[in-house]
Amino acid sequence: NSIPKVQKAAVIAKTGEKVQIKDDHPVKQPDQLKPGECLVRLHCTGVCHTDLHASLGDWPIPPSVPLVGGHEGVGEVVAIGKNTMGSPVKVGDRVGIKWVAYSCLNCEQCRKGLEQNCADVKLSGYTTDGTFQQYVQSWVNIVTPIPEGISSEAAASVLCAGVTVYRALKQAGTVPNDWVALPGAGGGLGHLAVQYAKVMGLRVIAIDGGEEKRRLCMDMLGADAWIDFTETKDIVSEVKRITGGRGANAAVVTAASSGGYTQAVDYLREGGTLMAVGLPAKAQLNASIFFTVFKNICIRGSYVGNRQDAIEAVNIAASGRVKVHYTSKPLKELERVYEDLGKGKIAGRVVLTM
Amino acid sequence: NSIPKVQKAAVIAKTGEKVQIKDDHPVKQPDQLKPGECLVRLHCTGVCHTDLHASLGDWPIPPSVPLVGGHEGVGEVVAIGKNTMGSPVKVGDRVGIKWVAYSCLNCEQCRKGLEQNCADVKLSGYTTDGTFQQYVQSWVNIVTPIPEGISSEAAASVLCAGVTVYRALKQAGTVPNDWVALPGAGGGLGHLAVQYAKVMGLRVIAIDGGEEKRRLCMDMLGADAWIDFTETKDIVSEVKRITGGRGANAAVVTAASSGGYTQAVDYLREGGTLMAVGLPAKAQLNASIFFTVFKNICIRGSYVGNRQDAIEAVNIAASGRVKVHYTSKPLKELERVYEDLGKGKIAGRVVLTM
Amino acid sequence: NSIPKVQKAAVIAKTGEKVQIKDDHPVKQPDQLKPGECLVRLHCTGVCHTDLHASLGDWPIPPSVPLVGGHEGVGEVVAIGKNTMGSPVKVGDRVGIKWVAYSCLNCEQCRKGLEQNCADVKLSGYTTDGTFQQYVQSWVNIVTPIPEGISSEAAASVLCAGVTVYRALKQAGTVPNDWVALPGAGGGLGHLAVQYAKVMGLRVIAIDGGEEKRRLCMDMLGADAWIDFTETKDIVSEVKRITGGRGANAAVVTAASSGGYTQAVDYLREGGTLMAVGLPAKAQLNASIFFTVFKNICIRGSYVGNRQDAIEAVNIAASGRVKVHYTSKPLKELERVYEDLGKGKIAGRVVLTM
Amino acid sequence: NSIPKVQKAAVIAKTGEKVQIKDDHPVKQPDQLKPGECLVRLHCTGVCHTDLHASLGDWPIPPSVPLVGGHEGVGEVVAIGKNTMGSPVKVGDRVGIKWVAYSCLNCEQCRKGLEQNCADVKLSGYTTDGTFQQYVQSWVNIVTPIPEGISSEAAASVLCAGVTVYRALKQAGTVPNDWVALPGAGGGLGHLAVQYAKVMGLRVIAIDGGEEKRRLCMDMLGADAWIDFTETKDIVSEVKRITGGRGANAAVVTAASSGGYTQAVDYLREGGTLMAVGLPAKAQLNASIFFTVFKNICIRGSYVGNRQDAIEAVNIAASGRVKVHYTSKPLKELERVYEDLGKGKIAGRVVLTM
Ligand SMILES: [Zn+2]
Ligand SMILES: [Zn+2]
Ligand SMILES: [Zn+2]
Ligand SMILES: [Zn+2]
Ligand SMILES: [Zn+2]
Ligand SMILES: [Zn+2]
Ligand SMILES: [Zn+2]
Ligand SMILES: [Zn+2]
Repeated sequence: NSIPKVQKAAVIAKTGEKVQIKDDHPVKQPDQLKPGECLVRLHCTGVCHTDLHASLGDWPIPPSVPLVGGHEGVGEVVAIGKNTMGSPVKVGDRVGIKWVAYSCLNCEQCRKGLEQNCADVKLSGYTTDGTFQQYVQSWVNIVTPIPEGISSEAAASVLCAGVTVYRALKQAGTVPNDWVALPGAGGGLGHLAVQYAKVMGLRVIAIDGGEEKRRLCMDMLGADAWIDFTETKDIVSEVKRITGGRGANAAVVTAASSGGYTQAVDYLREGGTLMAVGLPAKAQLNASIFFTVFKNICIRGSYVGNRQDAIEAVNIAASGRVKVHYTSKPLKELERVYEDLGKGKIAGRVVLTM
Repeated sequence: NSIPKVQKAAVIAKTGEKVQIKDDHPVKQPDQLKPGECLVRLHCTGVCHTDLHASLGDWPIPPSVPLVGGHEGVGEVVAIGKNTMGSPVKVGDRVGIKWVAYSCLNCEQCRKGLEQNCADVKLSGYTTDGTFQQYVQSWVNIVTPIPEGISSEAAASVLCAGVTVYRALKQAGTVPNDWVALPGAGGGLGHLAVQYAKVMGLRVIAIDGGEEKRRLCMDMLGADAWIDFTETKDIVSEVKRITGGRGANAAVVTAASSGGYTQAVDYLREGGTLMAVGLPAKAQLNASIFFTVFKNICIRGSYVGNRQDAIEAVNIAASGRVKVHYTSKPLKELERVYEDLGKGKIAGRVVLTM
Repeated sequence: NSIPKVQKAAVIAKTGEKVQIKDDHPVKQPDQLKPGECLVRLHCTGVCHTDLHASLGDWPIPPSVPLVGGHEGVGEVVAIGKNTMGSPVKVGDRVGIKWVAYSCLNCEQCRKGLEQNCADVKLSGYTTDGTFQQYVQSWVNIVTPIPEGISSEAAASVLCAGVTVYRALKQAGTVPNDWVALPGAGGGLGHLAVQYAKVMGLRVIAIDGGEEKRRLCMDMLGADAWIDFTETKDIVSEVKRITGGRGANAAVVTAASSGGYTQAVDYLREGGTLMAVGLPAKAQLNASIFFTVFKNICIRGSYVGNRQDAIEAVNIAASGRVKVHYTSKPLKELERVYEDLGKGKIAGRVVLTM
Repeated sequence: NSIPKVQKAAVIAKTGEKVQIKDDHPVKQPDQLKPGECLVRLHCTGVCHTDLHASLGDWPIPPSVPLVGGHEGVGEVVAIGKNTMGSPVKVGDRVGIKWVAYSCLNCEQCRKGLEQNCADVKLSGYTTDGTFQQYVQSWVNIVTPIPEGISSEAAASVLCAGVTVYRALKQAGTVPNDWVALPGAGGGLGHLAVQYAKVMGLRVIAIDGGEEKRRLCMDMLGADAWIDFTETKDIVSEVKRITGGRGANAAVVTAASSGGYTQAVDYLREGGTLMAVGLPAKAQLNASIFFTVFKNICIRGSYVGNRQDAIEAVNIAASGRVKVHYTSKPLKELERVYEDLGKGKIAGRVVLTM
C-alpha cells in the first residue's frame, strides 16, 4: 500500500515527437495533493484517437507538453488530499478517469450540466497528465465510481468511447423502433454504439467494411441491417431502401472527413438528427444548407459526456447489455499502437496494462 | 360576389424567363373545386426570395411550369368545393395562403406535425399556382384563419417571413434573457425576428449594415446591441464582447452564403444553437466539425412552419407586439421587384396589391 | 365481397341495461358513406374496462345510446365513401379501429398532435358505434394500417391497451436503465407495459398479486423485480429497497383508486414521473401536495394516443418484441366478459371473434 | 472590516415557541470556517411563508432547533475558509443566500441539476442557521452572485419567491402568447410571477381579491385579465371565457389548500400544465383523476430552484423587467410579521433590515 516515488509512464516531450517509455517518472505524493485531489493507482488504460491527436498536436487547441497522455483509465484510489470536504469516494474505491479530468462545477456551463465545456476544464492526457502511467492525480468530485459487474478493462473503454456514443444516442431524439445509421459500426466507438442503440430499442444500420466487421455487427451485436461500404456504391440509396424509402431517423457520425456528414444529411429522413461526435483536426461540415433546412435536419455536436452520462454508460455496460471488444497490450507498446491507429488497423479498442 | 372567368396574374412560362403580367388568366370556377378545395379572392400578396428562386429555377428541386408564383397571400374565401366535409372555414372568412399550400395530414411527417415535409406536399407558387393572381385555389384544412387586429398586408408577410423566424426562435432552446444573434436583422425576415425575439424575452444582437438599418433595429424594434458588418472587422469578437466574453446562446441564420454559418459556430457560446433558415441554391455548411462537436453546438435546419406555427405567429402579430415594415406596389411591378431583390435593394418586405 | 344489410351486433339500449346480442342490426351501406368515411368488416375486437364504463354510464361524460360498444377492432376495408380525396387506405387493406374514431385534424388540439382532445372527436363505442358488430363505419384518415407480422387479435389489444401504455412510457422522461414501477403489471395494460418498458431499455418493477402473475411478469416478460401486493406490507419501502434506496424513476399508474397515486408519489425518486393513465369514474388524486412539490414529482395524465402513437405501438408489436396475452371468445359472450371484468377476474385481454 | 464575536439574531429555541431577538448570538469566526465555507455579512433578509412553517414545525420534515430562520438574504462575503480551492467568489463580493444553503454537487440529483433534492442538502433557516442574523455562514459554491442593477432588498425577494415562480414558468411548456393563470397574483410570489410571465411573452390572467391587488396586477404589472375571487362565483367559467372558451395553457398554483388544484385542472386547456409550487403542511392534490388523464393535464411539482435558476431569475430582475414590491421593517419586528403572514395580511414581500 505504500506509494513509490517513481513509476512507469509514457511521456511526450514535444508534440510530433515519439512517446518515451520511462521507468523513473515521478509519482505525485499524498502530501502534495491539494484539497479535492486524489491519487489513483491504475489497473489499465484505453488508447483512443484523441491520444494520437495529443501526440501529433494537430488539433486547433494545443496540448500541454511535456505530457503523459491517456484519458480512459481505471484503478483504485490510494490517497485523498488533506482538507478535502465531503468526498464521494474513499481510499480503496475503484474509479475511472475520463477525458474531462476536472471541471469546476461552478461556472455557467457546469451549472447547466455541460461540464465538458467548463471554463476551467482540465483534460486528461491533454492539458493535465493522463493515464499512460501507473499513478495518476485526479479529483474526488470528478472520478467515475465503477460498480461491480464490469472489468476494469471494459470500463476503461466505456469511459471514453462508450460515454461518447451513449450520450449522442440519448440526445438524438429517437423513439423505440426508429432507425439509426452507424457509420464505422465495427470500430472502437461504433461497436459500442450498436449495443447502446439496441438497449434503447432502436433498429441499427451498421455501416462498415469487410466480413469480419459484418460478423461482429450482425451476428454478435445484433444490428438489424448491414452496409459494406467497400461493396455498396450508393450508401444513401441503400439506407433508404432498408428503411422503406424514408431514410434513417438518426445517425451518429464519427467520421474524420466531411463525406460522412454530407452523406448523412442525404440519407436521413426529414426531421432526422445527425449526431456529430468525431473531432477531426481540420475537416468542414460540407453538408448542403438547402437540404439541411428543407428537410428540417438537426446536426448536433456532442462532445464526450458529463459525470452523469459516464455513470449511466458504465452502469448499462455493468448490467451486461453492452460488451467491449478489446485487445490487451503492455504500456510499452504504445508507440506501435499509435502507428496502427494512424493507419486505421485497430479493430475494437486497445487497452494497455500497467 | 360573382366570380369572373378571367383575372390578372403574373405567369412564369419557363424558369429563367421573365414574368408575364396577364389580364386574361383563367379563374378556377366553384364547380371545378374538388372536395376539400376552396377558392380565395386575394387582397394582396407578399414577395419573397423564394419567388425569385422559383422564377430562376436554381434550386435543387425544380418548380412546375408554367407557374403563377407567390406564397404569402391574404384574402377572402369565395367558394368551397362541393362534398367538402367539416370545413374549418366558410365563405366570407379572411384567410392566408402560405408556402405549404397543401399537406395530406396523414403521412408520417404530417402525423408528427412536420407538414412542411408531407410526402404529398404542394408548395404555393412553386409546385401549385400561387398568390400572384387575383383568385387562388387552396384547401380548407390548410388556409390560415386571419384574426382581427392585423391588416391583410401585414398578415401576408407574417405568413412566410414571420412564421419562418418565429418557428426558428421557438425551437432554439433559449430561456428568457439569453442572447440571440440575428444577422440580417434589418431585412425582411430579420426585422420580424428581432420583434419575435423580444416578445420571448431574449436579448437581441442585431447584425446588419448602414445607419437606416441601425435605426430600425435599435430605435424602432428595440434590439439590445448593434453590429454594423460594414464597419466591424471581427464580428465574432464583437459578439463575444457584447455577451461578456461568452458568446451568443443562439443565432438565426438566413444567409445565402457559407460564411454566416462558419461565423455563427464561432460566436456561439458552448451548448448554443444555430437555427438555419435560409435556402441558398448551392452553398455548403462550411462550419468546422471540430468546433461544432467540441462546443456542443446544435445546427438545426428549420423550414417555414406548420399550420400551428402560422397561427401562433399571426396571433402574436395581431396582438400588436410584432409590426411588419413593408412597401406596397401593384402586381404589375413584380418584375422590377425581382430585380431589386436580386440586387439586395429591398428594405423590409414588399407587398403587392391586386 | 357483397355487403349484407344486417349483421350480428352487441347493442346497449340504455346505460345500465344489459347488452343485447342482435342478428339483424343494420349495416351502413357503401352508398350511405360520406366523403372521408369507410366501412370495415371486422375480424375481431378487444374488450376493455372502458366498454364497461360505457355500458354502466358511470363516467362524468355520458355515452350516446343506443350504442354498439367496442373500440379495439381489426378488420378489412370493404368500402370507401364516394368523393373521398387522397385516402391513405384502399379497399382490401387491413386496418384497426381505436378509441379515437374520428378527429378533425384541424382544431388546435389536432394541430398540436393531441387528436384525443379534438374539439369534434368521436369515440368508438362511446359517442359513435364501435366494434362489437361485424361491420363498423369509420374514417379513412383515422383508421390504423396494420402491418404484416401481427395477428388481428394481437393488434386489436395493442390498439387500446398497447397504445395507452406505450405513449405513457414514451412521455415518462426516462433514460435507459431507469427503474419504472408498474402496478397491475400482470393485467391487460400492465403485461404490455412490461414489454414496452423492456424494449426501451428500462428496468421494470412488476407489482401485482399471485404466483401466476409473478410467473408471467418475471419468467415470460422479463421484468427485473417483483412485488406481490398480497404479501408485501409496505410497497413503498420495497420499491426503495429494490432501487438501492433511491426510488423508481417513473411509474405508470392504471389504478382505479386513489391509493395507487398516493403510493407512487411516495416511492418515486426525486424528479420522477408518475404517468396517470387510468380513468376511474370518481377517484381523486389524493397525493400529498407537499411531497409532489418537494420531490419535484411530475404527475402527467396521458389519455390513449394519437395516430402516430398507434402506428408506433403496433409496429413494435409486429417486430415481435411485444406479445399480447389474450383469450378468444365469441361476441355473444360479451355480457359474461363484462361480469368478469367488473369482478377483476380477467387475466390478460379478452378478444371477441365475430 | 473586523468581524464581531456576537451579533443580533432571531432565534427559535423550539418549534412552536416565539422567536427571540438576541443581541449576543455568536458569530462564526473566520478561523472556524471549513474549506469551501464562507461568512457573509447580511444587508437584509426577506421573510417568507416557509419561515413560518419552520417556526411552527408543521411540515412533514422537521426543522433543526435551536434555529436561526431566514433563507432570502443578501450581503457581502467577509471571509472564506482556509484551504478553499477554486472559489467563484472572493471577499467583498455581493452574494445572496437562498433556501438551498448547501448541496454536494456530486450526488445523482446534483449531477442532474436537481440540487434542491441533493442527498446532503442543507436548507437555510431550516436545517442550518439562516439569514435572520447579521452574519451567516455559507458555502462559496452555492451563494448566488448578485449583479449590478438590483438593490439588495429586491434581490433578497427574488432569491426565493422570484426563483420559485421563474423556474415554474420556465418548466410550464408554454409558447409565447399562451395564457397562464396566476392565482394569488397580487401576493409575494404572484406579483413576481406576473412579471416573469410577461417577460416570456405570455398572456396573464391574474386571480386575486380586492381593488388594490387589481390595480397592482393590471395597471402596474401589465396582466392581461383580472378575476376577483371575492366577486366571481365561477372562476373556472371566467378563465374559459377570457381564453375564448378553451381554458388556460398553464397555471402556477401556490395555494395552501386543495381547492386551487382541483380548480386548475378544470380551467386548464387540454394538454395544459399545472405547476405546483406551494408547500402546504397537509393538503392533498384533490384533482379528478378522470379529467387529469382525459385532458392530458400535466401536474408538475417545482420546488424552489437550483443555482442556475437563481442566477437567471436575478439577472432578469437586474435588467429592470421585474420589480419587487416590498415593505422594509427592522429584524426585531419578525414576530409581528409572522402574525401578519399567518393571517394573510401581508401584501407583496417583507424585507428585514439588520
Ligand atoms: Zn478517448
Ligand atoms: Zn466549470
Ligand atoms: Zn416566402
Ligand atoms: Zn402528409
Ligand atoms: Zn380500451
Ligand atoms: Zn380536431
Ligand atoms: Zn422563501
Ligand atoms: Zn448532492
